[in-house]
Amino acid sequence: MMNDILTHSIAELTRGDISPTELIQATFAQIERCEPQLNAFISLFHEESLQRAKEIEAEIRRGESPGPLSGIPIAIKDIIYLVGTETTCGAKNSVRTVSNRVIDATAITRLKAAGAIIIGKTNLHEHAFGVTTENPHFGATRNPWDTAHVPGGSSGGSGAAVAARLCTGALGTDTGGSVRIPASLCGIVGLKPTYGRIGVQGVVELAQSLDCVGPMCRTAHDVAILMNVLAGDLPPVSDYTADLGKPIDGIKVGLHKAHFFENLDAEVAAAVETAIQVLEELGVEIVELSLPSVPDAHHAALTILMAEAAHFHRERLLAHREDYGTDVRELLEAGLELSALDYVTAVRARDAARRDFVEVFWKVDVLLTPATPIPAPLISVDTDSSVGPSNALRPRLTQETRIFNLLGLPAISVPCGFTEAGLPVGMQLAGKLWDEKRLIHIADAYQAATGWHTRYPDGL
Amino acid sequence: MMNDILTHSIAELTRGDISPTELIQATFAQIERCEPQLNAFISLFHEESLQRAKEIEAEIRRGESPGPLSGIPIAIKDIIYLVGTETTCGAKNSVRTVSNRVIDATAITRLKAAGAIIIGKTNLHEHAFGVTTENPHFGATRNPWDTAHVPGGSSGGSGAAVAARLCTGALGTDTGGSVRIPASLCGIVGLKPTYGRIGVQGVVELAQSLDCVGPMCRTAHDVAILMNVLAGDLPPVSDYTADLGKPIDGIKVGLHKAHFFENLDAEVAAAVETAIQVLEELGVEIVELSLPSVPDAHHAALTILMAEAAHFHRERLLAHREDYGTDVRELLEAGLELSALDYVTAVRARDAARRDFVEVFWKVDVLLTPATPIPAPLISVDTDSSVGPSNALRPRLTQETRIFNLLGLPAISVPCGFTEAGLPVGMQLAGKLWDEKRLIHIADAYQAATGWHTRYPDGL
Repeated sequence: MMNDILTHSIAELTRGDISPTELIQATFAQIERCEPQLNAFISLFHEESLQRAKEIEAEIRRGESPGPLSGIPIAIKDIIYLVGTETTCGAKNSVRTVSNRVIDATAITRLKAAGAIIIGKTNLHEHAFGVTTENPHFGATRNPWDTAHVPGGSSGGSGAAVAARLCTGALGTDTGGSVRIPASLCGIVGLKPTYGRIGVQGVVELAQSLDCVGPMCRTAHDVAILMNVLAGDLPPVSDYTADLGKPIDGIKVGLHKAHFFENLDAEVAAAVETAIQVLEELGVEIVELSLPSVPDAHHAALTILMAEAAHFHRERLLAHREDYGTDVRELLEAGLELSALDYVTAVRARDAARRDFVEVFWKVDVLLTPATPIPAPLISVDTDSSVGPSNALRPRLTQETRIFNLLGLPAISVPCGFTEAGLPVGMQLAGKLWDEKRLIHIADAYQAATGWHTRYPDGL
Repeated sequence: MMNDILTHSIAELTRGDISPTELIQATFAQIERCEPQLNAFISLFHEESLQRAKEIEAEIRRGESPGPLSGIPIAIKDIIYLVGTETTCGAKNSVRTVSNRVIDATAITRLKAAGAIIIGKTNLHEHAFGVTTENPHFGATRNPWDTAHVPGGSSGGSGAAVAARLCTGALGTDTGGSVRIPASLCGIVGLKPTYGRIGVQGVVELAQSLDCVGPMCRTAHDVAILMNVLAGDLPPVSDYTADLGKPIDGIKVGLHKAHFFENLDAEVAAAVETAIQVLEELGVEIVELSLPSVPDAHHAALTILMAEAAHFHRERLLAHREDYGTDVRELLEAGLELSALDYVTAVRARDAARRDFVEVFWKVDVLLTPATPIPAPLISVDTDSSVGPSNALRPRLTQETRIFNLLGLPAISVPCGFTEAGLPVGMQLAGKLWDEKRLIHIADAYQAATGWHTRYPDGL
């Protein structure tokens, strides 16, 4: 049975007519009902959240000005520091990188100051290094649309929690697609901002030059409100909601059909094609582009990720090899084997792609691709493979996302339909450096025209 | 017997009372006399230079406005494209990287447009990858101050040619010290500008992220005039001569005694100490600094250089291993063995050093170090070593210079004395990004106060 309050937008929830206590109670009722099937959380803060909701209610009653996220239940990926909690990174204790219980990450400080209630820490692919959230230590998280399927990863717990209305919004991290992939497979909106936009202080690193923190919500409008809190005061400062509701006609949307539109699942291809038509009806101009640097740059992003991750984990890997999950260990050990020449090759490919993309963004405002080339795969689909099951899916699921981490460009995943079997399909919009506001604007206009986000998983 | 015209500054030579033809004739007379002892050149353009001098003379007679380098004899390192000539890179034909006979490098285009006469191409350490210019294919270049000693490298031919007055100025390239080391060991001024200041189009690469082209002259004033021609119109545009002659009092000069002042030859240490006193008498303020990132960054610079050089040479190395000199082959093969983790470690050390140096340049205007910790070593001093003789000297001779390539900062080597045995000693001034003008200003003031540059090698 669906609880209406849980489908409300942040704007509705902070208008003043919803009791924070009631919202938290409804949230935890939904969690109690769904969590046994989904396994979205590593830890939950029921009592503390209720207590905080009561405090906020008292503050509001005293006439104190509530923050922009006053009483909003937010879940955070368990790779982000939160005072008083372990940060597991989805890993065994022996190989946890840092477990700082005494400071909040920058993003958490900002959420708390805005009145958000951190209700729990979500499951993730071990060390954020994978795309399925089949976590060998904390169990697999399951996709709310069909629990036989993965939610994507590495921020799979955050994706599943938002989709199943176990929270209004969540934080993920994205080093190769880890916000956008679960957003796509769970039918929600996920934003990877420009590299550096949201500070990563207090977020355990996977690959320092690629890591980003990003918000995950059911609507682009909610993402805008979270970004107003999370983006901080680093210039250029934007009001991310300022353009919402304005027409998007005249915006130039680029398509690079090679690479991004290759090897697509037929239903994904059809849904994205229809989404492009919807955007054209809304007045955007579609421009076909050529980006010859993409395949090499895609490969370069993985090289740099593997090298940096192996650099960060080396000592723990050598000391506690057996404590890593198979797939993550394989990736880290492969990272140890990379040569400096591989790295130089990657740096050169990055340079070439940067030049290519500068030119692209002289011609168009945003680039449109599918968010993932396939809908959510079955859990452990590849258990017979010689590689870890997640690693067999990795090249496929990161096909659309990885390059934007390499280039530091912002990119958003937006729901754009469902397969016959009822699994969500997502499209991706990628933009110029520091121009995530425009991505949110287009995504919001698209959601207003389509309403895919108003569907909810059966029975949850 | 010394020919006076060859000691003139560029300013004197372009005043209008010196015949370009006479200057070129005197230059080639000096070359004929000295080149058999020095081996500074790989190719010489006697006839073409004389022809060009006559043309310039005719142009001046016709009242055409001569350029700022009108008739000035310039030598260029044989790793720089010059129309109509092979570019040997000091290497065997089989492993020459590019030998483009049909275009001029950007720097050459600018020199020619300013009226300079390119008189020849100078010998270098093979592929610019070494510090002694003991070239196995074209012979060792010898130091004009004592031909039993190396001139330094890799721009050793340019250094020796300028010191012996076989040209008024020369171009070198500097990836780890290759302009400043031969400038120091040959008793001349050598500038490595800010990375990117002089375009490297048409300069065969050694390590793309570190390579710089730089002028080598007997005086900082001549370097300023060359920089006005070479720097092009990339902002910030400077008139490099504008501050010359102005006092340098109040300029803050930083000293980091660890690393840069460690393991110095006693005579070098004494000469640099005296130079610091001279600068203090000229009114600069000496500030002692701490730069804990320097040792790691120094190491990082070598890692990145070796990886990029190996990346560039890999195919030729695998196909023609035996055609490389021993020392260069050893370095390239060691580069092939570096891991991506080594590279990531280097990138992190570079990041740390960038932060350190930002703070340093809040406190001081320039940093002062020796230019080399030792005077010119004997040729093949280390022939019994298991490594190539140049590689045994490499860590020592690059101690002061390498880090400034890593950070892209400008640095100049200025003569500051002689050893008892008559070998030159150099000091180095390093500055803020794009602030090479200040380095030239201080160097010029120091030269005006000391006059070490008015000595010439005996018998040449």
